[in-house]
Amino acid sequence: MPVPQRGQVLVRMMAVSVNFRDTLIAAGKNFRGAVPEDTIPLSDGAGVVEVVGDGVSAWRPGDRVSSTFMPRWLAGGITREKAASVTGTTIDGVLTQWKVFNADEIVRIPDYLSWEEAATLPCTALTAWSVLNGPVPVRAGESVVVLGTGGVALFTAQFASAMGARVIITSSSQSKLERALTLGATDAINYADNPRWHESVLKLTDSNGADHVVETHGPATFETSIASCRMGGQVHVVGTQRNAQIDGSAILRARICLRSVTVGSHEAYYQMNCCLTQHQIRPVIDRTFAFEEAQDAFA
Amino acid sequence: MPVPQRGQVLVRMMAVSVNFRDTLIAAGKNFRGAVPEDTIPLSDGAGVVEVVGDGVSAWRPGDRVSSTFMPRWLAGGITREKAASVTGTTIDGVLTQWKVFNADEIVRIPDYLSWEEAATLPCTALTAWSVLNGPVPVRAGESVVVLGTGGVALFTAQFASAMGARVIITSSSQSKLERALTLGATDAINYADNPRWHESVLKLTDSNGADHVVETHGPATFETSIASCRMGGQVHVVGTQRNAQIDGSAILRARICLRSVTVGSHEAYYQMNCCLTQHQIRPVIDRTFAFEEAQDAFA
Amino acid sequence: MPVPQRGQVLVRMMAVSVNFRDTLIAAGKNFRGAVPEDTIPLSDGAGVVEVVGDGVSAWRPGDRVSSTFMPRWLAGGITREKAASVTGTTIDGVLTQWKVFNADEIVRIPDYLSWEEAATLPCTALTAWSVLNGPVPVRAGESVVVLGTGGVALFTAQFASAMGARVIITSSSQSKLERALTLGATDAINYADNPRWHESVLKLTDSNGADHVVETHGPATFETSIASCRMGGQVHVVGTQRNAQIDGSAILRARICLRSVTVGSHEAYYQMNCCLTQHQIRPVIDRTFAFEEAQDAFA
Amino acid sequence: MPVPQRGQVLVRMMAVSVNFRDTLIAAGKNFRGAVPEDTIPLSDGAGVVEVVGDGVSAWRPGDRVSSTFMPRWLAGGITREKAASVTGTTIDGVLTQWKVFNADEIVRIPDYLSWEEAATLPCTALTAWSVLNGPVPVRAGESVVVLGTGGVALFTAQFASAMGARVIITSSSQSKLERALTLGATDAINYADNPRWHESVLKLTDSNGADHVVETHGPATFETSIASCRMGGQVHVVGTQRNAQIDGSAILRARICLRSVTVGSHEAYYQMNCCLTQHQIRPVIDRTFAFEEAQDAFA
Repeated sequence: MPVPQRGQVLVRMMAVSVNFRDTLIAAGKNFRGAVPEDTIPLSDGAGVVEVVGDGVSAWRPGDRVSSTFMPRWLAGGITREKAASVTGTTIDGVLTQWKVFNADEIVRIPDYLSWEEAATLPCTALTAWSVLNGPVPVRAGESVVVLGTGGVALFTAQFASAMGARVIITSSSQSKLERALTLGATDAINYADNPRWHESVLKLTDSNGADHVVETHGPATFETSIASCRMGGQVHVVGTQRNAQIDGSAILRARICLRSVTVGSHEAYYQMNCCLTQHQIRPVIDRTFAFEEAQDAFA
Repeated sequence: MPVPQRGQVLVRMMAVSVNFRDTLIAAGKNFRGAVPEDTIPLSDGAGVVEVVGDGVSAWRPGDRVSSTFMPRWLAGGITREKAASVTGTTIDGVLTQWKVFNADEIVRIPDYLSWEEAATLPCTALTAWSVLNGPVPVRAGESVVVLGTGGVALFTAQFASAMGARVIITSSSQSKLERALTLGATDAINYADNPRWHESVLKLTDSNGADHVVETHGPATFETSIASCRMGGQVHVVGTQRNAQIDGSAILRARICLRSVTVGSHEAYYQMNCCLTQHQIRPVIDRTFAFEEAQDAFA
Repeated sequence: MPVPQRGQVLVRMMAVSVNFRDTLIAAGKNFRGAVPEDTIPLSDGAGVVEVVGDGVSAWRPGDRVSSTFMPRWLAGGITREKAASVTGTTIDGVLTQWKVFNADEIVRIPDYLSWEEAATLPCTALTAWSVLNGPVPVRAGESVVVLGTGGVALFTAQFASAMGARVIITSSSQSKLERALTLGATDAINYADNPRWHESVLKLTDSNGADHVVETHGPATFETSIASCRMGGQVHVVGTQRNAQIDGSAILRARICLRSVTVGSHEAYYQMNCCLTQHQIRPVIDRTFAFEEAQDAFA
Repeated sequence: MPVPQRGQVLVRMMAVSVNFRDTLIAAGKNFRGAVPEDTIPLSDGAGVVEVVGDGVSAWRPGDRVSSTFMPRWLAGGITREKAASVTGTTIDGVLTQWKVFNADEIVRIPDYLSWEEAATLPCTALTAWSVLNGPVPVRAGESVVVLGTGGVALFTAQFASAMGARVIITSSSQSKLERALTLGATDAINYADNPRWHESVLKLTDSNGADHVVETHGPATFETSIASCRMGGQVHVVGTQRNAQIDGSAILRARICLRSVTVGSHEAYYQMNCCLTQHQIRPVIDRTFAFEEAQDAFA
């Protein structure tokens, strides 16, 4: 059991979460370059503070906390310096039973969430929150198109619904669309049936297009995403797309803003937790594995 | 029946609404000075477009519209020029059966609202919307204290709830608090039982105070309102208060922002309508009168 | 001489301005599709109010005014409706000696500018102003890379300098760079000498990249523009680019926001005029033609 | 010589600065309550990093740094928690020759400033910067009224000028007004000659009032400050005013926002330094004392 130094705390990890991004890293296909082989994987995990080092007043044993995706991004805007440390990528991750954190690199988690649920927050939930709360935040009554039903997409639908927006979700799976509707989506478009699904968005939005489009898919859908967005609207892009050629003149013609979203600060995480708690939002978890089965979780 | 000129439309008024402010005007106690005796009263009304003048492409007979509080405030920030025309105050109001409007001085109303309901939107609802959507807008998960259960207060509670905020409502009437809870308020404080009600707010907000306080009462409650607000928070003030001495050092010590809110632009009205429609919010109407009973409505 | 109707004014045009965009329209290469042959060309012009129609209180004979690029975009954000009318494109333009405007479709021009200078404001100057004053406005002390020395680029350099930013201008012409330095640019990069000019930007910005990049060139420079921008920064794109394939994964990796900028509202125009006047900024004019030589101006 | 622990650095203080607030503390008249007698005074100082503790990568010996007013306010908005530590007030200050800081509690200072100049930044300069860069930041071409010629007032004038605003300064001293004009103020009003000086502001602003008013005086001037502000404008209040009764109905009638400004975060400090450096702004220093004369500096 490691010993925390001055300014540090020791956390017993209770649950960790595997994102699509983690599977890319494990497969050597990380978007931002290879990760050294001996790096402890995974950015997202929740646990309990066990030992508090000298000079730490913010935490006590028993506090329920999570890791953070970028431990040095405490608040304010993103900078190169803040983005240099990425848990499980440029620094060791949380797939471990004990972990020493600097005291300012963890965040309190909401009481009502299980360890497994809380373990999904640091990257997936916070990315979704940051999508909706950027320089031009989503406003109640606005329309938000969410592409797909992956982790970020479902959190985006849940948060956008809590924020009072109209949520138009797209998927090729009717059962996933139905689940999204129970999570707060107000309209569902099956793009398998309907490759020109931007026309459905236009129909739903009085021919204007949606105020916000959340693009999580990648190259194949970019043009339709842009075509779904209203003049002056926002297309938020997340994820690990490779080789995404975009027709720049389409962006210009559409007079939109295309925004690459990065996870978020600890302060944004705190604000997200207020929203989670107020609405008792529960993360959607696909499958749970025992610690010994960790390798299977990457499959 | 008046005839609209070029650029104008003739509207048949179907319902008008009496605000507290209108009763002050009628009583010669208007906040901003007396209104000439022969001014047609009331700022808020809804009706149907009957005749469209030359050069007007935005409207057709049959369109359901409302008046606007400041007909020259089309969009953007408030200015002295935009605020110079106030319906029922510096220019004639809507307590009339037929009214000619310039084509850009009316706003479309949501389909699902009755005439009576829509007649409450131009001043009361839009003020509440502007309270919550200012330079520092309310964010989902934030706490909003709403003082009282008057028209603006109830709309504020309804909108803040739709926006995902926690709504703490205060009143001296238990039955009014209970009604507010059915409209979306999440917590209720009876200040009759509890003159130090800011302590209740602190208790509900982890000792921080609320992110936003909506002050509709006036002088007697200012200090407690400020004491209910968190450091760096916003106190939004609406209404017709007179002689409200504020302890300026309290504002400074509290490090808050005290914001005097003015109704809102036609563009804000349009955005509000999107939120109303998305949430099918229904205005709370105290009593309805026939046109012939108009005078009674001011009592 | 045409007669203004109710709500209109008659303006004697004193000077008009030819933008690159106008030459594309004349050549049948307009970015947004062909313009009907009998449309009066040009969006930008300045003149004097000669006759004021009934019901107009905002203007008097002798007022110095200009046309506006999108006459229905009075204030607030862009919408499809506001963008539907474009002077000299979807509606008649200003290459005429007399023009009737609706009273809300013109803007007062600064006293200190000549007619020729004022004629450059409606599209070129206002686009530059909107580049710098968007949802994430340029802040004093930030760095702004401006590509090229065309009309929008030079106004951008002048405004950014007035706003207290560091202005890094790029050009392939040493003499144009030198002129830009006299207009307020603080650093100059000759990209002819230096095709990897983003490295020069990185050197000037402590390896971070610039806070804002103003892209006026088009496809050939997009990738270098993005490479010049700091993490979390803004790339503002203006102009008439065609066939601009952008590497979408570059945007994502760079975690930037790519914003397509549209001219601006009349309210923004008014705010720009305050800045112009405060700093006595003088537009840079290439050449001046007599009315009879109008055709030559398109060459 | 104290020894820095893990996460800390030892700084040799080269200069410290005495603010009006410090004299109040020394006199037992601190705005926010008495400060314990054995607290080391002063919040503002500059020095050189001498020794770097374990685990600190951000600093090296020789780095030029300053203290910060609220060492725990790293970035983002103010909170009760961030505001709990105030240098020289709730924790020991910088009137000392050696000082150990946590590594995240100091900020790099611009190269071009002397130690004495840099010592004025942490509280005085940063407050001025925060006044101008709040939720509704000053825009180039806007008008800013600055009351008086104290430390915050002069920095406000210098920054507002760098940001491209029109700066209207007020003082009762003609020589101080003249100095302010050399620092970037564009207009000067002597309020000794002219107790109704808000009328001068109105005259200078086309009868609208100023976009921003920076109130540093206190109770006696509040009403005139509000009367100098345009409808929808911002009155920023700083300082240590006591017993300032404000006519709340004046705020309401004026439809302004009254904002109590708190110093600022380390991130804001960094942004301010970019502006300082870009414009080579030099702080105005009244008098300099030797360390041994420290007591005289409070007189």
